[in-house]
Amino acid sequence: RIMRPDDANIAGNVHGGTILKMIEEAGAIISTRHCNSQAEEPCVAALARVERTDFLSPMCIGEVANVSAEITYTSRHSVEVQVNVMSENILTGAKKLTNKATLWYVPLSLKNVNKVLEVPPIQYTRKEQEDEGKKRYEEQKLDRLETKQRNGDVIFPILNPEPHTVGYSQSSLIHLVGPSDCTLLGFVHGGVTMKLMDEVAGIVAARHCKTNIVTASVDAINFHEKIKKGCVITISGRMTFTSNKSMEIEVFVDADPFVDEPRERYRAVSAFFTYVSLSKDGKPLPVPQLLTETEDEKRRFEEGKGRYLQTKAKRQAQMQQAAQ
Amino acid sequence: RIMRPDDANIAGNVHGGTILKMIEEAGAIISTRHCNSQAEEPCVAALARVERTDFLSPMCIGEVANVSAEITYTSRHSVEVQVNVMSENILTGAKKLTNKATLWYVPLSLKNVNKVLEVPPIQYTRKEQEDEGKKRYEEQKLDRLETKQRNGDVIFPILNPEPHTVGYSQSSLIHLVGPSDCTLLGFVHGGVTMKLMDEVAGIVAARHCKTNIVTASVDAINFHEKIKKGCVITISGRMTFTSNKSMEIEVFVDADPFVDEPRERYRAVSAFFTYVSLSKDGKPLPVPQLLTETEDEKRRFEEGKGRYLQTKAKRQAQMQQAAQ
Amino acid sequence: RIMRPDDANIAGNVHGGTILKMIEEAGAIISTRHCNSQAEEPCVAALARVERTDFLSPMCIGEVANVSAEITYTSRHSVEVQVNVMSENILTGAKKLTNKATLWYVPLSLKNVNKVLEVPPIQYTRKEQEDEGKKRYEEQKLDRLETKQRNGDVIFPILNPEPHTVGYSQSSLIHLVGPSDCTLLGFVHGGVTMKLMDEVAGIVAARHCKTNIVTASVDAINFHEKIKKGCVITISGRMTFTSNKSMEIEVFVDADPFVDEPRERYRAVSAFFTYVSLSKDGKPLPVPQLLTETEDEKRRFEEGKGRYLQTKAKRQAQMQQAAQ
Repeated sequence: RIMRPDDANIAGNVHGGTILKMIEEAGAIISTRHCNSQAEEPCVAALARVERTDFLSPMCIGEVANVSAEITYTSRHSVEVQVNVMSENILTGAKKLTNKATLWYVPLSLKNVNKVLEVPPIQYTRKEQEDEGKKRYEEQKLDRLETKQRNGDVIFPILNPEPHTVGYSQSSLIHLVGPSDCTLLGFVHGGVTMKLMDEVAGIVAARHCKTNIVTASVDAINFHEKIKKGCVITISGRMTFTSNKSMEIEVFVDADPFVDEPRERYRAVSAFFTYVSLSKDGKPLPVPQLLTETEDEKRRFEEGKGRYLQTKAKRQAQMQQAAQ
Repeated sequence: RIMRPDDANIAGNVHGGTILKMIEEAGAIISTRHCNSQAEEPCVAALARVERTDFLSPMCIGEVANVSAEITYTSRHSVEVQVNVMSENILTGAKKLTNKATLWYVPLSLKNVNKVLEVPPIQYTRKEQEDEGKKRYEEQKLDRLETKQRNGDVIFPILNPEPHTVGYSQSSLIHLVGPSDCTLLGFVHGGVTMKLMDEVAGIVAARHCKTNIVTASVDAINFHEKIKKGCVITISGRMTFTSNKSMEIEVFVDADPFVDEPRERYRAVSAFFTYVSLSKDGKPLPVPQLLTETEDEKRRFEEGKGRYLQTKAKRQAQMQQAAQ
Repeated sequence: RIMRPDDANIAGNVHGGTILKMIEEAGAIISTRHCNSQAEEPCVAALARVERTDFLSPMCIGEVANVSAEITYTSRHSVEVQVNVMSENILTGAKKLTNKATLWYVPLSLKNVNKVLEVPPIQYTRKEQEDEGKKRYEEQKLDRLETKQRNGDVIFPILNPEPHTVGYSQSSLIHLVGPSDCTLLGFVHGGVTMKLMDEVAGIVAARHCKTNIVTASVDAINFHEKIKKGCVITISGRMTFTSNKSMEIEVFVDADPFVDEPRERYRAVSAFFTYVSLSKDGKPLPVPQLLTETEDEKRRFEEGKGRYLQTKAKRQAQMQQAAQ
């Protein structure tokens, strides 16, 4: 589909959240179709996890997004989907890979939303494909178990914060979950949640560096808890780390099932977004360093630095591998 | 893409206008891409005409719309695109042809919007394809010349109208053209206009028969005049004819370039929509007869009857041909 | 236009904010058209003030909103517009008056946004109309001068607040101003702001009473400061007063012109919204009393009580007058 002004920031770069939403919709369609192909009973594929995603090149207003999705692995109860997004300038014909994403879905029964159904196995053309898929499956399973929900963390506004402190740029928004945000099961599409998370992270980044910013990557996101139609969700973001040319923002999603439900507010999702600041001709700009004040802020900064160095090392290893 | 609650009426049937908008977007993408493939200069394909379109089966919330587009003919300055829409129930795997549409586009220069560029010719696999395309091209050209814009016709509200008269169901809405309604040239997408026209026609039909109604077909629409960003458009509809089980509604679009332009309000588009009324289990219901009062209304009723009988005869001829 | 699922809450009642946005769009169109009718230079009418508005009956999904607007007074630099909204159930034909609103617009030059142009005078059929309009004009002018912007007030979250306290239900959201939110001048439509304000106020009300709530009225709103495209706006709401069957919520809008602007965050708008809680069959329910803790909260409660009693007295006077 053609990218419109509403999909982009004022510099004309399409929001990372818009792209994440398209990716998730494609993933939900292909995995729901697959899980119903030999179904005992009708089901809807629910997003369980998105692997770390890099935004390789920015997309602009007027370009066409081509989204293609493929099922690359199935376990007994989950489906791995690989989604590629190409941006196409239909005036020049130029095409660029914008994004490669891996998503995991779980089929939930349409009759009983707490029942996870079995996934029909796919055929692999080579035995190695199955083995590699199994390895990815085991890794993400481990990672999902490890993720601690930072349930205690709440973001409080600070009175008259200094520029470039954590308190200065932190932001939050609330959203009332409407019918168009939801799947047939009445739960929020993972893509809708990711779009709102990117919106908050982008505001945090822009408040910090006051320039045109774009999403560079999103760390793996686990969707532990479903969010129901009619909930109020609060999405909060705070900066955790800055390198010379990037900012890391942690985003929390809390759901408040306030109508007709005895349940308390709960943490539904959390994730790290990385942003870069761009000059008018699209070059990365230096970013003001984050000023940490409290012990917690300093600890989070060091943790963010760890993630940054790990990602950098991984990328260099991949480039060396590719160069061989 | 997955059909959402906002794409549909309260009975869950997707609006014809939503489908027309998707069709037009696919047509605009494929023809803009084609016209720029060997371009003298960058251009955007603008919708000039949509051929008569039948809605073959209703689409519902939760189904996936698969839209495919193909260029089937090129003249020197225009492109014919054939678009097919399939509805797919991803739970059952059932697919149905919803719609086959033919659209004509004209490439306008991005630098000078009044300049029509040349279209790169396509290759035909068989000579007959080119000949048939040329015949369709000549026919639509003739029809476009013939279309008189009924500029004089304005729809006035009637005080306390009787049920089932023309005045009783006639409706109009105004819309301020925003940035997301427009192409790169700053003119309204044809698909946006058609969606609004279908919305008004649907209100007229529902007011007349007070049941669940769906779009059955749209007559050929010619886009004589472009509509610019910032315009206010008034879309008005009135019923012109009823058969036993269908209603014909005439829709006008008037543009009011009220800021920054010395130009007067003008008639941009007009078209005939046909609606049917459906029972709860999806069967067509009888429709109350339209009561005509004035001479003009009686004349338009007879003209509508003419179109109705002509379409019926054409369809019977096609069915006989198919049966042979 | 037909009310869609996204226009309404989960009980099917259309949001007050959706209605306010339609009213403002109609007002902006008619006053922009009028001001350009004898214009020295092209201009866009900007919303300066909305008078107190009562929501007389709820509107539901599937109903058609009929909006009509009329210019009722012009001063040298401002236009008074009266907008009526009727809800029409197109299946039964039933029509109800939903809303009567009065809005004031000011024409700003398209070339120089800080220049206020002159308004072409309208013709009155009776001299009294002009005199009454002039009286309304003077009254609102006085009221606008009097309105102190509560600039100091910021809303802070409270840790583990008790139910029914002010801190328990207070809420805020941030919104990045996109192109579709703005007029041709690049400033946010007053209607967009009012819709967001109603959204926050509705969440505050629902958090307090945990039932289906609807907007009952909005106090006069003055738009002192324009908000530019690309700003981040923070909309915050807190409950100030409860009567037996109504809740008053104060809403602030703060604009943060963070990209490319040296300007500080500023208070753009503030207003009071009144909500009622409805049972499943649409009857008003008793509301839990607001627990005030601080001196400020007690003072605001008393002020809210004053507004409540004044409105009640005014309404009784009107009813007695009508009964005579």
